Amino acid sequence: LGFQHLLYPSENEPYTLLNCLTPEENTGCQHGLYFQDGERRVDYILTYHIKKPSSSRSNRQSSRFTDNAFTRSLRRGTARLGRTPPPQPRGDPEVASQDHSMDYHVDDKRLHREEFEGNLRDMGMELEKDEDTKTPGVGFVKIHAPWHVLCREAEFMKLKMPTKKVYEMKQSTGVGAKINTLVNKVTEPLYPNVEDNRTQNVKHLSYMFSREKQHLFDLSDRDSFFDSKTRASIVSVTVSSRSSMTVDCRLLLYCFLCRKYFGEKIGLYFAWLGLYTQMLIPASLVGVIVFLYGCATVDDNIPSMEICHPKNNITMCPLCDRACSYWKLKEACGTARASHLFDNPATVFFSIFMALWAAMFMEHWKRRQMRLNYEWDLTGFEEEEVSDHPRAEYELRVMQKSLKKEHKTQKVLIEKEKLTCRDRLPAYMTNVVMMLLMIGVTFAIVFGVILYRISTKTALHMSNNPTTRSNVRLTVKTTAAIINLVVILILDEVYGAVARWLTVLEVPKTDKSFEERLIFKTFILKFVNAFTPIIYIAFFRGRLVGRPGSYLYVFESYRMEECAHGGCLMELCIQLSITMLGKQLIQNNLFEIDQYFSVVLIPLKKLIRYIKSKRRSFQEEEREKKLQRYETDHFLEPFAGLTPEYMEMIIQFGFVTLFVASFPLAPLFALLNNIIEIRLDAKKFVAELRRPVAARAKDIGIWYNLLRAVAKVAVIINAFVISFTSDFIPRLVYQYMYSPDGSMHDFVNHTLSYFNVSNFQDGKEPMDPQHQVEMCRYKDYREPPWSNTPYVISKEFWAVLAARLAFVIVFQNVVMLMSDIVDWLIPDIPKDISLQIHKEKILMVELFMKEEQGKIQFIDSMIPCGGKEKRNNHAPIARSRSIPHTHSHTHANNF
Amino acid sequence: LGFQHLLYPSENEPYTLLNCLTPEENTGCQHGLYFQDGERRVDYILTYHIKKPSSSRSNRQSSRFTDNAFTRSLRRGTARLGRTPPPQPRGDPEVASQDHSMDYHVDDKRLHREEFEGNLRDMGMELEKDEDTKTPGVGFVKIHAPWHVLCREAEFMKLKMPTKKVYEMKQSTGVGAKINTLVNKVTEPLYPNVEDNRTQNVKHLSYMFSREKQHLFDLSDRDSFFDSKTRASIVSVTVSSRSSMTVDCRLLLYCFLCRKYFGEKIGLYFAWLGLYTQMLIPASLVGVIVFLYGCATVDDNIPSMEICHPKNNITMCPLCDRACSYWKLKEACGTARASHLFDNPATVFFSIFMALWAAMFMEHWKRRQMRLNYEWDLTGFEEEEVSDHPRAEYELRVMQKSLKKEHKTQKVLIEKEKLTCRDRLPAYMTNVVMMLLMIGVTFAIVFGVILYRISTKTALHMSNNPTTRSNVRLTVKTTAAIINLVVILILDEVYGAVARWLTVLEVPKTDKSFEERLIFKTFILKFVNAFTPIIYIAFFRGRLVGRPGSYLYVFESYRMEECAHGGCLMELCIQLSITMLGKQLIQNNLFEIDQYFSVVLIPLKKLIRYIKSKRRSFQEEEREKKLQRYETDHFLEPFAGLTPEYMEMIIQFGFVTLFVASFPLAPLFALLNNIIEIRLDAKKFVAELRRPVAARAKDIGIWYNLLRAVAKVAVIINAFVISFTSDFIPRLVYQYMYSPDGSMHDFVNHTLSYFNVSNFQDGKEPMDPQHQVEMCRYKDYREPPWSNTPYVISKEFWAVLAARLAFVIVFQNVVMLMSDIVDWLIPDIPKDISLQIHKEKILMVELFMKEEQGKIQFIDSMIPCGGKEKRNNHAPIARSRSIPHTHSHTHANNF
Repeated sequence: LGFQHLLYPSENEPYTLLNCLTPEENTGCQHGLYFQDGERRVDYILTYHIKKPSSSRSNRQSSRFTDNAFTRSLRRGTARLGRTPPPQPRGDPEVASQDHSMDYHVDDKRLHREEFEGNLRDMGMELEKDEDTKTPGVGFVKIHAPWHVLCREAEFMKLKMPTKKVYEMKQSTGVGAKINTLVNKVTEPLYPNVEDNRTQNVKHLSYMFSREKQHLFDLSDRDSFFDSKTRASIVSVTVSSRSSMTVDCRLLLYCFLCRKYFGEKIGLYFAWLGLYTQMLIPASLVGVIVFLYGCATVDDNIPSMEICHPKNNITMCPLCDRACSYWKLKEACGTARASHLFDNPATVFFSIFMALWAAMFMEHWKRRQMRLNYEWDLTGFEEEEVSDHPRAEYELRVMQKSLKKEHKTQKVLIEKEKLTCRDRLPAYMTNVVMMLLMIGVTFAIVFGVILYRISTKTALHMSNNPTTRSNVRLTVKTTAAIINLVVILILDEVYGAVARWLTVLEVPKTDKSFEERLIFKTFILKFVNAFTPIIYIAFFRGRLVGRPGSYLYVFESYRMEECAHGGCLMELCIQLSITMLGKQLIQNNLFEIDQYFSVVLIPLKKLIRYIKSKRRSFQEEEREKKLQRYETDHFLEPFAGLTPEYMEMIIQFGFVTLFVASFPLAPLFALLNNIIEIRLDAKKFVAELRRPVAARAKDIGIWYNLLRAVAKVAVIINAFVISFTSDFIPRLVYQYMYSPDGSMHDFVNHTLSYFNVSNFQDGKEPMDPQHQVEMCRYKDYREPPWSNTPYVISKEFWAVLAARLAFVIVFQNVVMLMSDIVDWLIPDIPKDISLQIHKEKILMVELFMKEEQGKIQFIDSMIPCGGKEKRNNHAPIARSRSIPHTHSHTHANNF
Repeated sequence: LGFQHLLYPSENEPYTLLNCLTPEENTGCQHGLYFQDGERRVDYILTYHIKKPSSSRSNRQSSRFTDNAFTRSLRRGTARLGRTPPPQPRGDPEVASQDHSMDYHVDDKRLHREEFEGNLRDMGMELEKDEDTKTPGVGFVKIHAPWHVLCREAEFMKLKMPTKKVYEMKQSTGVGAKINTLVNKVTEPLYPNVEDNRTQNVKHLSYMFSREKQHLFDLSDRDSFFDSKTRASIVSVTVSSRSSMTVDCRLLLYCFLCRKYFGEKIGLYFAWLGLYTQMLIPASLVGVIVFLYGCATVDDNIPSMEICHPKNNITMCPLCDRACSYWKLKEACGTARASHLFDNPATVFFSIFMALWAAMFMEHWKRRQMRLNYEWDLTGFEEEEVSDHPRAEYELRVMQKSLKKEHKTQKVLIEKEKLTCRDRLPAYMTNVVMMLLMIGVTFAIVFGVILYRISTKTALHMSNNPTTRSNVRLTVKTTAAIINLVVILILDEVYGAVARWLTVLEVPKTDKSFEERLIFKTFILKFVNAFTPIIYIAFFRGRLVGRPGSYLYVFESYRMEECAHGGCLMELCIQLSITMLGKQLIQNNLFEIDQYFSVVLIPLKKLIRYIKSKRRSFQEEEREKKLQRYETDHFLEPFAGLTPEYMEMIIQFGFVTLFVASFPLAPLFALLNNIIEIRLDAKKFVAELRRPVAARAKDIGIWYNLLRAVAKVAVIINAFVISFTSDFIPRLVYQYMYSPDGSMHDFVNHTLSYFNVSNFQDGKEPMDPQHQVEMCRYKDYREPPWSNTPYVISKEFWAVLAARLAFVIVFQNVVMLMSDIVDWLIPDIPKDISLQIHKEKILMVELFMKEEQGKIQFIDSMIPCGGKEKRNNHAPIARSRSIPHTHSHTHANNF
């Protein structure tokens, strides 16, 4: 399925798994792909570290290598999904005590290894050990699964295998098909070899493999019937799941085999990324059109024209206490014009469009997934078996618990214990507290940046240097945004580690649950981290300022910041683009472009790993040429899981959907990023990482739910951005309720309230002596100083607020309804696939019926006599069991 | 599964299906359960009408019986789901032309019947014809499926059958289990025999039946291995699905067999109804508590106390022009107190509770469904096969289309045509137009009732009779509510027929799609019908009145109605309870209680059917005693499908959730209704209807989606009821924004605006000379006459409106979030079931492994020599194919 090149990871563990490439594709490195007899193919390799009885120095050395199997097995699970190893849980007394009994463990480990190998042999596997390699300290166990074992396991796993029956897939013709072909051609670079079998017109009918029905399958070439990917996954499933039933609980602690990296999982990732990127094309097109519409209509926008009009003489109240002076609204001309680019009616349309786009994307993904499942013959497959296997850490905890209980009750417990909610309560509490703490930290940092911005602005305003003062806004904004970005980048790494640590504390039962909990926590933390500053700007900034004469102060001296005239949308847009671009450039592409040129990071890491393990020998260069294939593979970078890739993409999806109302170019930036990303990722998986065990996955799991959640939240956030952050609703209200002639003329004046400068609190009035002003204006809906209730919130405010809230309700419900309709209109299973499945079923029944008839005719010709009644009742059973199907010579044997 | 008694329907069709009861349960009527030989059991019966070559009178008679097979086959599909047959599509030229070729058709039919019977025999079925029965005009074809056919079809259908392996189900102990048992015992009457096998501790391990693995299954008693339900469904599936592949398209027009009524379908209905009723228990408890809270606090309610206070002297503006007079607010004391029962803070809590209740119910249903699927061994079953079969009407249309095309192009088309969107466009257009028209009719009728209410009220006010005038409100309300109810009941029937007609026009491809489309349309129409008057009262009444001096008039003379003081919630509540109770009592229970006493409707219908078909013979009484079992069954009422039952329940679910904020007693009424309903339904299905073919269904299909939709809509409607219909938000706003002391004192005064009576339009002022009033009050937030802008909407109005809208947003999003959390917290598959499934899988693998080892040991003992290498690669295949499993004597044959 395009991932034959994927290589398998190893950590410093007792055994590690290595896979071989298929011989067809790597004729150059056949060396080591077969057992010593040159006949039996190596299907799977386990590696382990051996302690060589050598000098005391090297002994210490190797013991450092073997380290503590116990703690390593703990670390193993935790190091699985991220790049950084987690802090080792030092508090655990069990772990600490193990540190002292290292020698016992080294022997113990060997014993268990032998027991384990015995189990493998009992299951029919054939093993060959290779401890005497050129790589010191590493032993290899090569596993070959003989034909009958493969058959048995394939039957148990209900693997669908191609039968002899071949049928032609109808190539649809017509305009639709042509458009489809064109789209496929254009978007081909987005799908690196994921669906390379799609071009074929002929498909083998697949059926669950069954030894009794072997005659149905095309077994002419037994060696290639199960391909290397399938063989490896069969062996890996067998080894891990079946052994656990016979091997005792303690051994499981050293059983590292529960790690599964599914081939289809990576395939699904690329298919998902491809579809996402493909869907980004129309989104960015519409986004660019919306942006261009804003550009084109900027000169027709009456409010900004009024602001920029030379006769406009409105005096605004100062933006900070004392240091700032009154200013002319004319000065905000540039910002007002720029705001229009992102704050125009097209934006409303665009955010509705993007909400529906997200719904379409989810639906299309469901369909694509269904199609891939069909093409990969996974339609009947249920995927719990392997992932239901408990993790070693969980078993350890359960064992500790039952030991404690046994100790207490002095009885041997028969029934297996399990971890209850009560056992986990401390961990859960820690989780909740830590998560809240982390979110609190994010909030505090954002608040700190706000304070920084306020104080720096005031300080710079006070400065006497005129160039400094003129650059105030720019300086403050840039530094604040950079600080925010740096904080986000740093916290992202910290939060990743914290989430992992918290998940380890929880001791989830299965690998799957571990992964899901970890992803969930990481997602929450990273999401909060990335979006808190943006949410502050969108919904809080400029709203909690108070009014002239009665401003709101934090810590009694910092006046809250206001937005520039024209709404906060402009600032939101700037913050968004800086965060999004900065994150993408720095966090992902910079690292990955390095990888692309293959000069900096991964080779460096490889070199370090290599040097470490070979510190004593200096002829590496010469040796490496003679190394077995699996030995070179051993030094490749391990595969760290797909979580970082998905996480990156889902945060990006958040940028694309959540605040799209304020930044219609987001899809375009995302698209450009992803086109590079896909090529880099594919290269990385193919050339730089060990090949993961290829096995089966039907869907992208928890990521789908997270995507759905983001898409849901996006609807409400966009509704609020349009109605509260942008000036869309005030403009509408003015036009239809207050405007004398139904136009936007005088809108700016309507949004500004009057303030009598004599009402300034003492010491807060501007020091600037130049201006002699009686009234200044500020942006709010309040009663004028000459009314009965001066500065009280006016009726207009409430009317606009009601309109804003009504818009939120209408927008949210309309968009949700439309999404539901999209969801309902697009069937989950593509029409052609459901027809195909139906057709396959009919073909299968036909095949069986024909076979049946053939058998009956054969019997009839063999047994000329026999009661009709009796035959009907009994004969067919005996027949179907005893009639041979493939080899004609066996017929004679039976009769 | 508790439905062994269910009987099967027949219409006047060429063949009809009849099923027999199992002999164990009906020892009294064994007559006719076996073929003439007394050995072969009857698994399935087809009935058809025969034309007897008799006198011309009876000939005419019988031709009226056989009627037109063609049109009947059309009617068949349409009559399937409802009680009333649809209007026959007369415009179709094809149908019209068929009317003239009746004789041809009678012969043609017999021919096709024979061809069809031939096909059945080819498939291995054994048939016995019985045209010479005591029931004239009806022929019976009895079908027996021999053992090998049953086995083959069971394998194709992937039926899960019990294996020999038995394991004990762990009985959970502890408090939780005890509570569970108690709950089960209390709610037992709600589940009529649906889950009678739940009490057993032992379960047979089930596995997909396969003839090669026969030795795994417990075949000691072949006659009872497949029970009668399974046999019948096997035969029915075989007959309908396999025959379609060989029988030509024309025959399908007379193939009536596509109708499937699934046994599990009815089981699921009762399980669903049981769970729903069970879930109604806590809901009605909380509802009653909320109501009692309202009763208890009615004397603490400051606003109503103020209204009832003897010193209260507020004069209100007249409620209608001229005829009505000013009135004292004190007069509304009763209504105000009653309103409090349904309009208090507990109501808000209750509607949040009910939204979560709905989410919980959906989740629990998913779990219950999963559990039933597991208990009924349906876990691996996929259910499209049968329902994918195209309907006869569809095939006819396709045939017509291709004939037309052939005619045009003068070529024989090889590829099969299908109906495209273009072919269906007229039908779709008709659908949309008719649906809109019907909804328009509903609106018009509701509007008519409003006009009736306004005009009658004014007329009665004008009357000079004092008793009439004092009873005005009551009279008008009662008559209007009764009119509404009658209209709803009549339109319900009309809409059912219209929906059916529209669906027939659409020519859906499959039975499943027909059913879904029909249900969807019926649901929309009935829902609109039931809820339009209620929505009018909740959201529009009293809102479009204008103000004194400038009232809003319809048709220039009818002033829009106002609500009584205290909000419209009280009136909403009355309308709700009348509609709900009336609908339940009249539409369902009245009919069904009749059924219960088994005297009126069904026996009457039976009698009519019976008399009709036996018009010539007069000795029915004597004959009936001698009738075969299947002959008596033939005269039972046909099974009309579950649609009416589900529809009734989903409308009730709407009453329970949609407006629950205004009527907390709804769940209680629903509960009482359902307890009766369950018993009546069970009785009806068991004793009064023919037994439907028992087959498989995994879920309740489209009903689940409709329930979800209702639950979703309920959230937003409740949010609006609380914030707009009730006085909850104005009270809160008054308390926190306007009240001088934070209490509710003077709230009533605050909500009333002033009106200067001199501002009445000419001719609109009250004629009553008694009152000398200068100012009257009315309920609205408007500026007083003495302000600068008299009678303009005031700031308070906007503030309250903003608060109302904000509440809607908060309520909707909080409740949706909580529902999602409930959805996410409760796993779809119950823990014990998923453990059980996992355990079964392990047991299955163990079973196979043991068998495997047994075989190998056996082989080893048989073949003492043989190359190890060779045996590993080849021997096991030959072994697994040729080793017999059950009969030891065949061993000798093979070796």
